[in-house]
Amino acid sequence: MTLNLTIVQTTTKKEKPDPNQLGFGKYFTDHMFIMDYATEKGWYDPRIVPMQNISLHPAAKVFHYGQTVFEGLKAYRTKDNRILLFRPDKNMERLNHSNERLSIPPVDEEFLLEALKQLIAIEKDWIPPAEGTSLYIRPYIIATEPALGVSPSNHYLLMIILSPVGSYYAEGIHPVKIYVENQYVRAVQGGTGTAKTAGNYAAGLKAQEGASEKGYSQVLWLDGVEKKYVEEVGSMNVFFKINGEVVTPVLNGSILNGITRNSIIHLLKHMNIPVAERKISVEELYQAHANGTLEEAFGTGTAAVISPIGELNWQDKKMVVNNGETGSLTKELYDTLTGIQNGSVSDPFGWIVEVK
Amino acid sequence: MTLNLTIVQTTTKKEKPDPNQLGFGKYFTDHMFIMDYATEKGWYDPRIVPMQNISLHPAAKVFHYGQTVFEGLKAYRTKDNRILLFRPDKNMERLNHSNERLSIPPVDEEFLLEALKQLIAIEKDWIPPAEGTSLYIRPYIIATEPALGVSPSNHYLLMIILSPVGSYYAEGIHPVKIYVENQYVRAVQGGTGTAKTAGNYAAGLKAQEGASEKGYSQVLWLDGVEKKYVEEVGSMNVFFKINGEVVTPVLNGSILNGITRNSIIHLLKHMNIPVAERKISVEELYQAHANGTLEEAFGTGTAAVISPIGELNWQDKKMVVNNGETGSLTKELYDTLTGIQNGSVSDPFGWIVEVK
Ligand SMILES: Cc1ncc(COP(=O)(O)O)c(C=O)c1O
Ligand SMILES: Cc1ncc(COP(=O)(O)O)c(C=O)c1O
Repeated sequence: MTLNLTIVQTTTKKEKPDPNQLGFGKYFTDHMFIMDYATEKGWYDPRIVPMQNISLHPAAKVFHYGQTVFEGLKAYRTKDNRILLFRPDKNMERLNHSNERLSIPPVDEEFLLEALKQLIAIEKDWIPPAEGTSLYIRPYIIATEPALGVSPSNHYLLMIILSPVGSYYAEGIHPVKIYVENQYVRAVQGGTGTAKTAGNYAAGLKAQEGASEKGYSQVLWLDGVEKKYVEEVGSMNVFFKINGEVVTPVLNGSILNGITRNSIIHLLKHMNIPVAERKISVEELYQAHANGTLEEAFGTGTAAVISPIGELNWQDKKMVVNNGETGSLTKELYDTLTGIQNGSVSDPFGWIVEVK
Repeated sequence: MTLNLTIVQTTTKKEKPDPNQLGFGKYFTDHMFIMDYATEKGWYDPRIVPMQNISLHPAAKVFHYGQTVFEGLKAYRTKDNRILLFRPDKNMERLNHSNERLSIPPVDEEFLLEALKQLIAIEKDWIPPAEGTSLYIRPYIIATEPALGVSPSNHYLLMIILSPVGSYYAEGIHPVKIYVENQYVRAVQGGTGTAKTAGNYAAGLKAQEGASEKGYSQVLWLDGVEKKYVEEVGSMNVFFKINGEVVTPVLNGSILNGITRNSIIHLLKHMNIPVAERKISVEELYQAHANGTLEEAFGTGTAAVISPIGELNWQDKKMVVNNGETGSLTKELYDTLTGIQNGSVSDPFGWIVEVK
């Protein structure tokens, strides 16, 4: 594919941040990708430019009506200095799924992936080499038309920004404590839960704050209808090992179709470990914990990769999982997945895409 | 109250738009109000400046996680050229309610109202005189911190922008056709439905598009749990006159506490017309329509004021209300409320606030 892309190189490169103090999404690289959309033109003027502020009319629809979608993926540096992406086509596909839900015009997935690779190639020095670090990639689209009527915008901006990152949680790969949320709801069937859109995250901030105050790092959402069934964690899907079987909530129309989730299901099947996607009530988890069959629990997501869960708090009943330590299957999945991602473990699934 | 407010006047005033072609939220005045927030400083530097684009880092949280709230009210010009606001204290109160839900720091309601009045006074020439026209006022807050971790922002901008407006609907005060939405859901208890926040409107775009394609101007949302009970219309609360009694959905934790809704309830009580806030199933409306007791239906909201509903479509069953014409009570309420708002009818409730 030949890319028709304008590239404007920066004249003032930033200093790279301390690789041991990266945190998540705090530092940004020297360049970004931008592309415009107008109803009468379609997507146009794709370009890589120096990282810069964007100037918007105060009435831009994104500010008022939240018409926006995003994606999140990572670029990894291998020991022999190659640059790998993990299933990036899935992110492009999901971006268009989100677009559909938010009445945003679709993008050309193949084109956008090529543009993304080009941006990564230009910013390759920003990909940190240390284990557990990577370059986080954030494609997103915002509605920019300055008009206060509630209707889909006629103008959009698509951008890709890059951020070198360490661990998502302060705990690193150590177990996190999760609070089961009973009051607030993130998403419901018929809502926007299957899309990666801003409003889903805005809805979660309040519960997240409450959980933090109680000493928990994330909330586990329950379904919005009966508040009985487990959905997902802040920005992770969730898995439980109960009596030898791994279970995860089925894609029911209110949770995100996580790419890490999908990959873990593949990996488990490949490992001949029983895995089921189904409804899981929090009561079931509580019973399993009581009778000693709740063996492991973990979250999955691009940012945190795999995050062991050491404790669940449900209405002040605490379920400590595996003595608060990382379970052996969780560890094995973490090692295999991160190994495939950073090129140290072979990839039998064709998931890895190299950036040349 | 003495206001500590910087004012920078524009040097290039825009031409006013044709007062017969205003539409809704398409034109903006010469000045805007801005105020900053930083965790360590609180709200600071309130100022009125020429209307201008805002410059934001591409990682500003509002773009990614939708942490934003807004309000909507109007300034009216009386026949004798006074400028009136309608219950503006209620909008300030609701702004803080929305802030609470979105983990945004509260604002000083009294201060913000004074700043708003000052802005209106500066822009008073922009308030159109014709009946049905007014100056729409949009206060809003956006999270501006450039950081991709999902957590409340440490920086915000509060802005107020102004737009001279005509009728919200192309139909003017003529009856609109409304589509009862069965698939998509706007909000659910525990979600953000009681807040005026961007994500609620983003969630509604898709359904709105579908309704437009079928020739309906808005959707009527049903509850997200059972999809049985009527909630509200796009940007209006909804009322029905059934067999002499006026009913409106009770504030159940998923709909907006509309200020027009509240005012209509007061007016009806004042007029000794029976009014009830309660659960209303769409089945009940269907039955009432079938037996001839669904006498009138209308939506209420700042933008549209009172909008008669001439037809409801529920799963392709059409309920034509009052032969598709504006009902007499709807008309009386419209006349009284717009009369109070534009100063031509006396205000027994103390709702009107004059801008000097
Ligand atoms: C709400 C939510 N669920 C799940 C995930 C995990 O998805 P993925 O594995 O594709 O990163 C994410 C993060 O991307 C998320 O934001
Ligand atoms: C979702 C929603 N419901 C109802 C209303 C009506 O509220 P109000 O009468 O305060 O304008 C609005 C508009 O403000 C709205 O956006």
